[in-house]
Amino acid sequence: MEKARLTDEQRRDWLRLARAESVGPVAFRYLIETCGDAGRAIGALPRLAERAGRVQPPRVPPPAEAERELAAGAALGARLLCACEPAFPPLLAALDPPPPVIWTVGDAGLLHGRSVAVVGARNASAAGQRFARTLATDLGQGGFTIVSGLARGIDAAAHEGSLETGTVAVLGGGPDDVYPPEHDGLYRRIAERGCVVSESPPGYRAQARDFPRRNRLISGLSLGVVVVEAELRSGSLITARLAGEQGREVFAVPGSPLDARAKGTNDLIRQGAALCEGAEDVIRTLEGIGAGMREPEPTGYHPQASDEPDAALIRRVAELLSPTPMPWDEIARAAGAPGPLVYAALVELSLAGRCELLPGSMAVSG
Amino acid sequence: MEKARLTDEQRRDWLRLARAESVGPVAFRYLIETCGDAGRAIGALPRLAERAGRVQPPRVPPPAEAERELAAGAALGARLLCACEPAFPPLLAALDPPPPVIWTVGDAGLLHGRSVAVVGARNASAAGQRFARTLATDLGQGGFTIVSGLARGIDAAAHEGSLETGTVAVLGGGPDDVYPPEHDGLYRRIAERGCVVSESPPGYRAQARDFPRRNRLISGLSLGVVVVEAELRSGSLITARLAGEQGREVFAVPGSPLDARAKGTNDLIRQGAALCEGAEDVIRTLEGIGAGMREPEPTGYHPQASDEPDAALIRRVAELLSPTPMPWDEIARAAGAPGPLVYAALVELSLAGRCELLPGSMAVSG
Repeated sequence: MEKARLTDEQRRDWLRLARAESVGPVAFRYLIETCGDAGRAIGALPRLAERAGRVQPPRVPPPAEAERELAAGAALGARLLCACEPAFPPLLAALDPPPPVIWTVGDAGLLHGRSVAVVGARNASAAGQRFARTLATDLGQGGFTIVSGLARGIDAAAHEGSLETGTVAVLGGGPDDVYPPEHDGLYRRIAERGCVVSESPPGYRAQARDFPRRNRLISGLSLGVVVVEAELRSGSLITARLAGEQGREVFAVPGSPLDARAKGTNDLIRQGAALCEGAEDVIRTLEGIGAGMREPEPTGYHPQASDEPDAALIRRVAELLSPTPMPWDEIARAAGAPGPLVYAALVELSLAGRCELLPGSMAVSG
Repeated sequence: MEKARLTDEQRRDWLRLARAESVGPVAFRYLIETCGDAGRAIGALPRLAERAGRVQPPRVPPPAEAERELAAGAALGARLLCACEPAFPPLLAALDPPPPVIWTVGDAGLLHGRSVAVVGARNASAAGQRFARTLATDLGQGGFTIVSGLARGIDAAAHEGSLETGTVAVLGGGPDDVYPPEHDGLYRRIAERGCVVSESPPGYRAQARDFPRRNRLISGLSLGVVVVEAELRSGSLITARLAGEQGREVFAVPGSPLDARAKGTNDLIRQGAALCEGAEDVIRTLEGIGAGMREPEPTGYHPQASDEPDAALIRRVAELLSPTPMPWDEIARAAGAPGPLVYAALVELSLAGRCELLPGSMAVSG
């Protein structure tokens, strides 16, 4: 997305569109790119959704509702950052697609430095927690901000080890959703000295389904992700996979095969993650990687407002969808239609609730 | 070396040449290949050593001394296998160069099957020993013979775990050199149900300098080597390096960075060793590898008795040597002389004690 400074009204509309029903980050970016700004996108929304078969247009929060969210954030001392704004974290802006908005509490300047995520098991061993704390301290002294998820175990140890040098907690709920409750003190210290980040509105309580999105923010804010202890099929492995998909470095701390909490990290190493025995391993690898100021990756398609799919194409694309994620360009090939037109059809189907657009230019039936 | 059946006299001479002063395995193979048999090689030895500057010819044990070694072995119930004999383990025969002779006690048939070495720290943790024992049992049930070094810790656990299915102990001293002494009972059980292997004569006590050669036998007898726990700069890592040089698979069991006994194995993984969390990892990798019956790799040079280096070439080659190991072909290039002639000059210098020939076609000043 083009960098822009927003008027108060544009910010409010940006937030309304971000919170609109059926508008995910892919559709959000498409709408901004094709309509020019959020206000015009909100105006276009009913027609696009209807063309893809929706009867009731998707709900867009009225201006007053967005104003209430902005006021609630201000009351917390939180700051809303829109993906088009210069203050938006550059590594997040480079995601395909970026989250449309984030709330931050504390020093959002930390989100412009060089960051490493340190994540792992909630039921971590004492040794694993000690390792995470020391690693975070050493990486902090090496100039890195530490990003983690405020969870029990490894996450908490990573934050504690980096309170002095810079720590970022990414929450699954709103910017005031402290979970687990016993991390209230840690949350407050991070909000004061570090930074808290959330994609959700103030007052929103995290549900289980919010954590993959939270994990995507953790890796998205970081040049690399270190997984300290993780069982097989754990959330930390999802973060590692997302990091790989986002082109971030993945590090894993090995452990004894007799310890179930090392199964996930050993498996990551087997799959090609860099073996991490301490901060040196991370610093050496990330040294060569730029200051986190990279430009957004171009998306595969450059949508034009003139790319108007007709009803027949929308029907054809809808029929090609299945619960198995498929790359857009394969769908376009199967549909025998130009990529940008199929992309437009997919966005419209997503607005109609008939399709879900996934990061990495993939789609599934909705 | 060509496969051959030996007469009693040829066996005795083979052993005499193997035990001759300054005759390492490279020179041994060269002498057999150029002279045709051990008896003629013993006859040629003084002239070759003298040409390279030696005044007293290298000592060759008289026939009676070899007879005494053979009788001592027979008294132990041990069996001498010469590198040219069909009973010699095929994986060892394929080494470049093979050991000229080995003594075996017990079931030498085990040396013709599919073997995996399991080695590691002497001061292993209880968890490491348990892992090694279970791994050896599981690999044994998967059809593999387990090779190790009878040492304390991981080695002993690996032998114990595979006594029922097939275990091979390779000793640094003679075939009766039980070390450490408390492994006397284990040694006897291996000699009865498994196989003991040694390159040294009966009665010989291992010195520290014998262990790299022992380690080369351990990896040489095996399709792969699993290192269970190892500190940095430990003997197990030497075994792993030798295994890599011999084209064997190297496996390492990961461990916590907080455990010094995992430093070596984690480092192996970092360098490309396969991560091993159990027998499955080993079996899956070795499945595709032949039954251990591969033909000896051809050496770089095929020496002819007619390759007679002159004094000037021998001097030139001697001057090119240094304490840094150099490949023979680089020495030949630097000397500006044909490879086979330089190879002959190197062997003669080694017989004169002025050069050491290393596995992998390398040479250092002697």
